[in-house]
Amino acid sequence: MNSWHDRRILDLFGIDLPILQAPMAGTSTPEMAIAVSAAGGLGALACAQLSVEQARKELATIRAGTKGPINVNFFCHTPPTPDPGRIAAWRKLLAPYYRELGLDPASPIPETNRVPFDDAFCSLVEEARPEVVSFHFGLPAPSLLDRVRATGARILSSATTIAEARWLAERGVDAVIAMGLEAGGHRGHFLSDDIGLQMGTFALVPQVVDAVKVPVIAAGGITDARGIVAAFALGASAVQIGTAYMLTPEAKVTDLHRQALRSASDHHTLLTTLFTGRPARGMVNRLMRDLGAINPAAPSFPLAAGALLPLKAKAEAAGSGDFTNLWSGQAASLAREMTSAELTRRLAAEALEKLAP
Amino acid sequence: MNSWHDRRILDLFGIDLPILQAPMAGTSTPEMAIAVSAAGGLGALACAQLSVEQARKELATIRAGTKGPINVNFFCHTPPTPDPGRIAAWRKLLAPYYRELGLDPASPIPETNRVPFDDAFCSLVEEARPEVVSFHFGLPAPSLLDRVRATGARILSSATTIAEARWLAERGVDAVIAMGLEAGGHRGHFLSDDIGLQMGTFALVPQVVDAVKVPVIAAGGITDARGIVAAFALGASAVQIGTAYMLTPEAKVTDLHRQALRSASDHHTLLTTLFTGRPARGMVNRLMRDLGAINPAAPSFPLAAGALLPLKAKAEAAGSGDFTNLWSGQAASLAREMTSAELTRRLAAEALEKLAP
Repeated sequence: MNSWHDRRILDLFGIDLPILQAPMAGTSTPEMAIAVSAAGGLGALACAQLSVEQARKELATIRAGTKGPINVNFFCHTPPTPDPGRIAAWRKLLAPYYRELGLDPASPIPETNRVPFDDAFCSLVEEARPEVVSFHFGLPAPSLLDRVRATGARILSSATTIAEARWLAERGVDAVIAMGLEAGGHRGHFLSDDIGLQMGTFALVPQVVDAVKVPVIAAGGITDARGIVAAFALGASAVQIGTAYMLTPEAKVTDLHRQALRSASDHHTLLTTLFTGRPARGMVNRLMRDLGAINPAAPSFPLAAGALLPLKAKAEAAGSGDFTNLWSGQAASLAREMTSAELTRRLAAEALEKLAP
Repeated sequence: MNSWHDRRILDLFGIDLPILQAPMAGTSTPEMAIAVSAAGGLGALACAQLSVEQARKELATIRAGTKGPINVNFFCHTPPTPDPGRIAAWRKLLAPYYRELGLDPASPIPETNRVPFDDAFCSLVEEARPEVVSFHFGLPAPSLLDRVRATGARILSSATTIAEARWLAERGVDAVIAMGLEAGGHRGHFLSDDIGLQMGTFALVPQVVDAVKVPVIAAGGITDARGIVAAFALGASAVQIGTAYMLTPEAKVTDLHRQALRSASDHHTLLTTLFTGRPARGMVNRLMRDLGAINPAAPSFPLAAGALLPLKAKAEAAGSGDFTNLWSGQAASLAREMTSAELTRRLAAEALEKLAP
């Protein structure tokens, strides 16, 4: 009978399969979390783009849909002090696109809704008692972290360097997500803004495994069973998978974005600061080509996003992804389209088959 | 009895162990190649910094030292047309360092010795008939490539993207080296200069495996047996290892560089254009911090190197690596110090043990 040799993460979270669905703000859904948890993996609810009320409702939906454990994820960035001069310069840079699309460059900027973990979210955690709470961009203030820990939740965060892994382990996380450069969406770094210091999954995972005592979850470029087996070989106790779940029917992903992911073998991704002000990996589009993927003119996270929303909406309505954050990891071409439950089960079964043929 | 399941590269090169010693211009030595080939792997002679006469001599040394096959490696860049204005600007940028170190900023620039594959080197290949000929930065002109092929040599080159892997396969290489971003030294890209398009080993290897019919050799961040097993899991038929061999006694590596590699867990690497004009991964030092690792002022490859040589020599004599190209991959901290033969044997034995416990 095939079974997983490394049971550290399985036992820690009370799950059957060492597969974590990546929390993807704006993309993952309660339906995806339910399907993954029901299949034996760890489903996740991403709260960064939800109000506390929305998060409470989605959590209730998940609890009603599965008895399995759930990972509730929060960003924990420090909200920026808006810099009106910088925002005005950013709008000026985008004004030609506004005019091109028939939009008023002087119209009010929609509010961006990426909020960090705070007292209100912490109260929700105390009330809903998710089995796992994960953070992106480091950890929240010690007083908030202590309250989360007191609920009995297992605590996770992502490291993009060995130093970040050590920093997290010293602060008592139960496991570290080693997030290689291949990963889609926002990089999780928090000790240094120098992207060049970040490592690929292949180099990062074994060095993090050697650097910390807690189990390590590999993330970044893991899309099929080959990646799961490779992550285990590098010393990981589980994997976190994002991009592969974006092509499931449970993902809140536009047709336009799905089409781009489907043609991923002909696409390229880059880290870009244009869409939110923080580096995130997405497929190259017109805005990235025009302005350069990393452009210091983009206001601090998450303020860059606001002025792009009208452009994104107008262009998407016309079938164009020119102004859309087309998040994707570097291995989207390896994804196969099926339901989230089927994907979770198949990835696990194929990995087990390879591990113990 | 343990054995390698995937024999494609073993049979192609006539070797016992699926480990290629990376050709490292200026660092690998005939003694290293002899040791690796004698241990059952594929040793390599890097010719980019050798004259034809030196290469002939080193090849003779290797042939006298082992009956095993050998990989002879060449750069195949297009030599740049020197741009006197750019070189003058580069010297001006470096002049303060010259003065600080007591050097004359107006002294003649030493010649840099990175030469591409040409008729003379091709004649050496025809004469010495190495079993494997590998290229970095693409492939040489078709007429030269045809002459190499006519010798019966197996032909290799490195791909940093899926598009480059396809390009190489279409031109008839016998195997593709999938060179992930983690690799130390010069990036092997040749279709696009945009580093952002390049992938980590974890994402690159399986996608290259899916894109080409020839066997794939994984490179970048592979330093221990975990990496070898992971590379096989991703679909590679062999691995190419560089950084781990830099800490062997056979490596031509200064004490200063060795010390930096030994403390690699506390060091960071970056891709930098400063030392030669082409992006290469090295440990961060003063020059990189001062000028920025990627600086467009660096003249075209390999012309940037010349003006740095006096600074490097003077600083190194005083025990400083401030101006040294401290090449390293992203996983140097996983390296263990032993002879090249022992390293080759141990890596293979440990990988086999993990593959078939």
